[in-house]
Amino acid sequence: MTTEDTPNHRTRVAAERRGKTRAKLLESALLVFAQKGAGAVIDDVIAHAGMARGSFYNYFRTNEELLAAVADEINDELLRAIDPVVLRCDDPAERIACGTRLLLHTVRRFPLYGGFMARLPFPAANSGLLGARFLARDVRLGVATRRFADIGWRVGADMLVGVMLSAACSTAREPLSPAYPDASARAMLRALGLDEVEAARLTALPLPAFELPPSSLLRRAQLLSVGRD
Amino acid sequence: MTTEDTPNHRTRVAAERRGKTRAKLLESALLVFAQKGAGAVIDDVIAHAGMARGSFYNYFRTNEELLAAVADEINDELLRAIDPVVLRCDDPAERIACGTRLLLHTVRRFPLYGGFMARLPFPAANSGLLGARFLARDVRLGVATRRFADIGWRVGADMLVGVMLSAACSTAREPLSPAYPDASARAMLRALGLDEVEAARLTALPLPAFELPPSSLLRRAQLLSVGRD
Repeated sequence: MTTEDTPNHRTRVAAERRGKTRAKLLESALLVFAQKGAGAVIDDVIAHAGMARGSFYNYFRTNEELLAAVADEINDELLRAIDPVVLRCDDPAERIACGTRLLLHTVRRFPLYGGFMARLPFPAANSGLLGARFLARDVRLGVATRRFADIGWRVGADMLVGVMLSAACSTAREPLSPAYPDASARAMLRALGLDEVEAARLTALPLPAFELPPSSLLRRAQLLSVGRD
Repeated sequence: MTTEDTPNHRTRVAAERRGKTRAKLLESALLVFAQKGAGAVIDDVIAHAGMARGSFYNYFRTNEELLAAVADEINDELLRAIDPVVLRCDDPAERIACGTRLLLHTVRRFPLYGGFMARLPFPAANSGLLGARFLARDVRLGVATRRFADIGWRVGADMLVGVMLSAACSTAREPLSPAYPDASARAMLRALGLDEVEAARLTALPLPAFELPPSSLLRRAQLLSVGRD
C-alpha cells in the first residue's frame, strides 16, 4: 500500500474536497444573491457553481440554510479580523471608534457584502451582525464606566447595529463616499455622549493596518465579482 | 329594476367586497409572518384568512408581492398619521425629535409590527421605511440650515433609518422599555450635532396627541393578535 492509498490519506483528501465544494457553494451564493436579490434560488447558485442539484443537498437542506451559512462565515471572518485590533485599546470609546471605522471601510471596499446583506431578513443579517458582537460589549463597558452617557446599553447597541447594517445596505444603492466611515463613526460617538472635540479626535486617529486574509470568503468573492463584470 | 339591481350598485358592491377581501389578506399576512417568520408561505396565509388558494391569486401573484403590499400599507398609514404632526414644527431638530419619538412609541405599542419588519429583507423594509420618508427630508433641512453638524445628509439619513429599523426588529426579541423611545431620540439628536441640553429639552417636549385611525391595518391586526393569544 503506497501512502496515497492509506485510509487516512483517502479520508483527508475526501475532507479537503468536501471543504472546497462547500466553499465554492458559499462563494456562488454570495455572488448570486448580491446580484439577483432575494428572488435567487438554489438553481441559480448551483448553475453558478457548475454543480449538480443532487450534490447541493449533500451540503445544505434549504436556501435559508445556505444563506445563513454565508452570513455566519462572513460575520465570523470579520469578527476574527477586527476584534483583536479593537481589543488593543482599553478605552471603550476608542474601541467603538476603531471598530466601526474598520467595519465601515470594509463595507466600502466590498460592496458585494452590502448587496448580500440587503437581501437577508433582519434577524439573519443581525445574528452576529457584521461580526460586530464587540459593539454591544463595548457599549456596556462604556456605559458601566461612565465613559458614555447613561444611554442604556440596549439603546446604544441597537443603534450601532442598525447604523452598521443601514450603511452596508446603503452600498447596494450607491457607493459610500470616502468621508462616510469617519463621519458616521463620529456621529455614533456623539450619540453615545462624547463631545464633538473628543469624537473628532478619536475618529482622526490613524487606523491600524488591517487586511482580511486571502482565504476570506469576502475577498475571494469580490475578486471573482470584479473579474467577471 | 330596483336600486339594488342597477349595474352601478352591483359594481360598487363588487368593489367593496374586493377591498374587504384584500384587506383580510393583508391582515392575515401581517399576523402569520410576524409569528411564523420568513418561512411562512401563501398556504399559511390563506388558511388563516379562511380563503381558497385560487382566490388568493386574484389579488397577488406571489408571496413577495403580498409582503410588499403589507409593508407599503403600514408605511403609508404611518406616514399619513405622523408627517402632518411633524410638519407643525418648523425646526428640523424638533421635527426629528417628534417624528422619531412618535415612530418609536408606535413600534413599542405594536410589537406585531417589529415582528413583521424583522422578517423582511432590508430593501423591502426600507422602502419608505416606517413611513419615515420625512426623516431624510428633515436631515437635509437641518444640515442645509446649519441647525445640525455638517454630517452629510446621507450619513444622517442612513443612521436614522437604521436606528428606527433596528428598534423595530429589537421588539421581535424583547419588548422596548418605556424609556427607550426618548433615550433613542436623544442619542440621535446628539449624533446630528445637538448638545446634550438641547437634545434633552427637545425629547422632553409633550408629544402631540397621536392615534392611528381605527381602519389602520396595524391596529386591526394587533387587536386580532391580542384577541387570539
